[in-house]
Amino acid sequence: MTVSLRVTVWNEFRHERTNPQVRAVYPDGIHAALAAPLRGAGLDVRTATLDQPEHGLGEAVLEATDVLLWWGHQAHAEVQDEVVERIHARVLQGMGLIALHSAHFSKIFKRLMGTSCDLKWRVADERERLWVVAPGHPIVAGLPERIDLAQEEMYGEHFDIPPPDELVFISWFQGGEVFRSGCCFQRGAGRIFYFRPGHETYPTYHEPAIQRVIGNAVRWAAPNEPIRPRRGRSEAPEQIA
Amino acid sequence: MTVSLRVTVWNEFRHERTNPQVRAVYPDGIHAALAAPLRGAGLDVRTATLDQPEHGLGEAVLEATDVLLWWGHQAHAEVQDEVVERIHARVLQGMGLIALHSAHFSKIFKRLMGTSCDLKWRVADERERLWVVAPGHPIVAGLPERIDLAQEEMYGEHFDIPPPDELVFISWFQGGEVFRSGCCFQRGAGRIFYFRPGHETYPTYHEPAIQRVIGNAVRWAAPNEPIRPRRGRSEAPEQIA
Amino acid sequence: MTVSLRVTVWNEFRHERTNPQVRAVYPDGIHAALAAPLRGAGLDVRTATLDQPEHGLGEAVLEATDVLLWWGHQAHAEVQDEVVERIHARVLQGMGLIALHSAHFSKIFKRLMGTSCDLKWRVADERERLWVVAPGHPIVAGLPERIDLAQEEMYGEHFDIPPPDELVFISWFQGGEVFRSGCCFQRGAGRIFYFRPGHETYPTYHEPAIQRVIGNAVRWAAPNEPIRPRRGRSEAPEQIA
Amino acid sequence: MTVSLRVTVWNEFRHERTNPQVRAVYPDGIHAALAAPLRGAGLDVRTATLDQPEHGLGEAVLEATDVLLWWGHQAHAEVQDEVVERIHARVLQGMGLIALHSAHFSKIFKRLMGTSCDLKWRVADERERLWVVAPGHPIVAGLPERIDLAQEEMYGEHFDIPPPDELVFISWFQGGEVFRSGCCFQRGAGRIFYFRPGHETYPTYHEPAIQRVIGNAVRWAAPNEPIRPRRGRSEAPEQIA
Repeated sequence: MTVSLRVTVWNEFRHERTNPQVRAVYPDGIHAALAAPLRGAGLDVRTATLDQPEHGLGEAVLEATDVLLWWGHQAHAEVQDEVVERIHARVLQGMGLIALHSAHFSKIFKRLMGTSCDLKWRVADERERLWVVAPGHPIVAGLPERIDLAQEEMYGEHFDIPPPDELVFISWFQGGEVFRSGCCFQRGAGRIFYFRPGHETYPTYHEPAIQRVIGNAVRWAAPNEPIRPRRGRSEAPEQIA
Repeated sequence: MTVSLRVTVWNEFRHERTNPQVRAVYPDGIHAALAAPLRGAGLDVRTATLDQPEHGLGEAVLEATDVLLWWGHQAHAEVQDEVVERIHARVLQGMGLIALHSAHFSKIFKRLMGTSCDLKWRVADERERLWVVAPGHPIVAGLPERIDLAQEEMYGEHFDIPPPDELVFISWFQGGEVFRSGCCFQRGAGRIFYFRPGHETYPTYHEPAIQRVIGNAVRWAAPNEPIRPRRGRSEAPEQIA
Repeated sequence: MTVSLRVTVWNEFRHERTNPQVRAVYPDGIHAALAAPLRGAGLDVRTATLDQPEHGLGEAVLEATDVLLWWGHQAHAEVQDEVVERIHARVLQGMGLIALHSAHFSKIFKRLMGTSCDLKWRVADERERLWVVAPGHPIVAGLPERIDLAQEEMYGEHFDIPPPDELVFISWFQGGEVFRSGCCFQRGAGRIFYFRPGHETYPTYHEPAIQRVIGNAVRWAAPNEPIRPRRGRSEAPEQIA
Repeated sequence: MTVSLRVTVWNEFRHERTNPQVRAVYPDGIHAALAAPLRGAGLDVRTATLDQPEHGLGEAVLEATDVLLWWGHQAHAEVQDEVVERIHARVLQGMGLIALHSAHFSKIFKRLMGTSCDLKWRVADERERLWVVAPGHPIVAGLPERIDLAQEEMYGEHFDIPPPDELVFISWFQGGEVFRSGCCFQRGAGRIFYFRPGHETYPTYHEPAIQRVIGNAVRWAAPNEPIRPRRGRSEAPEQIA
């Protein structure tokens, strides 16, 4: 990890201001809870939220972002299409994207997946257990073979995403469902990680193991001097007789 | 193959009416050339074109379509977004889609891929040779290990698509490029096959081996009584103590 | 499905002869229980067992087999290496292989996977629930979105297999584990399906939904006029100046 | 990259001692040519060769190896099966493996792939051009979009490997073939990269771009504190009523 890895944590930041139950868990917002351990690991972290101008994601910010984290839930529709297209272009150029929990329904994630991204869900204070199915993947470095969460929202299959390029975690839920909870995608020169846990009323992002996954994912998703392929009409490298 | 497999061949059908060189190769339109061998194989084939109402793709037509073939080039932008969304929904429900040649830049293909779908290209009357890299795949049933085309347009990497779920063909071009020419994707309950050859000024779709690939692909992409997962808020199958 | 699809069901056939509990569930052997519904669907089915000469898998039998089903458990080591290599060669040429339950540890499955194929297990009369994660796959044609089994052995992750080329089912277990229960692999021109359920003391193979999966898998795995690529020293199709 | 990354470069080291043409290109052996740029990048590199005791790959050496490079050609059969099994076990535990050129037919690569690994080949002093098809992959960091080699041996499809988990390079050959030249595989906790170029009579491993690929691959394949899953009979994390 280089010290110059530049991370932007984006949060809708609505629940925390309107719902006391959420504020009790994340008093400074989910973005603050996500940013703190990344800063603690020496990354260069800024935050951005929905109600800032351009949602805090102007061109200069995105140009200066190596990896973007996204948490949104109730206000996906308020994100401007122009900003979505700007993020989309940056991902294809190599910017990493970590889509968290209800970001499965964000405009940017659906735009990149090309599918409905729909799923089953239930809020019933049930146990979730994430099992590692890719034991050598950088995203699980230093983790135990499973992560137990005492209470979480359930997300259940079928999750309407493209088959992941790499499947890292599968969740078990107390109520009887399973879910592909950690999914890697390559799109253009960019790397995308979808990570399921993180309902706003549970202290999931305060869990050290969850923080470790997110930190690992940020480093995995960071660009590596990506190639910029030439496209369009092209001269032949060989002579055509 | 069942006799009831219902295929709709969609063609932009502009080049053939305005360019004598194209008309000489495909006097009745590319759709007619694509439809004939499928009809000969006993499939139930209809055609549709851009300048028909709703581009010939009204709801009733799509509901009665198991597999949709798509050829478009110069008028991608004229395809109505509403029709694109209708096709998209049908693919996720299980309708197959065969995207041919310049359909890489069609709205529906880009919508499903979530990437730019950009590539290199060149029209230089050069040789193309398609090599099979998935020898047991249903799409190559009964084919030789390679297909040689005397003259084709070149498409070159990097082709900005998601990593294909299955890679079936790789093309060699005389001018020095390669291309992932036969690519399978699963999206929702639908199956998508992108097949590269088919520039409008070359008689590619009259080649028996190419017709065989397309016929195989239609049968591969046809829906198989797909599952209709329930989504949204869901009761737990297990009791949560 | 053609009537000429030729299936060989292989069973170790030891538990049924030595363990009354198993014999009560499968009085004629697991192979008989597997063969019956395939025969009922019009397939040409034979059976073979460990204690036959060459384990019932002489060259002529394998040459006349389109798809081989494999159930083994306690006597994997008794299968002769020569027969394993013969099966292996046939799979690479296009014969389908359905590896059932404890066949994860069979010589032929390990030979094809190249990994340890190890896993967690427990026999505790617990519930298993298989969720479909590939809703358009031919192997799930006509099924509901999940299959519930009242009692099964548990298999848990990490299952040490290569990442499956297609993942069709994920199992939930009452005791808290998950498992990739339906996995497709392409090897050479052959198609392999691993399907988890089927512990010998439970009536799993009498379940209509399980029988449907196996029947679908047999049709999916059957060869499709595979390509026989030339290999070794090769003349150039192009002139090298 | 940490300074402690420990690399072992294994070479058969026969051609260089018996064939003056090879010795002219690699006077100190292919292993020396491979080791030098890795040492120059600060890695901890040792070499090992076939004719050393245990082929230079005793248990202590393998335990102290993060990534193993393998070049072999004419003497694959002389590698002891016991050493192959030792390497195999280490890869599943997390050791990286870079299989170079004719190592496609090495015992360890075939053992891990489970397929024949056969291909077409020709030595005709022809041009090879490697195109990047995964522009954001760490293995192509800092590279141009293609690598041109003035003279190389041809390897052609169908290459009988499992579908790669990630496909990074596709080669174009002057004589008309294509090849999946850069292939990533996950097996157990280990990462494997097959990289095609490197025939012993051409100065391929002296090319800076090729050295860059190999250096990137070593870093990509290095273990990341992999998980050690528990396997075998397991207690249930949940109570089974």
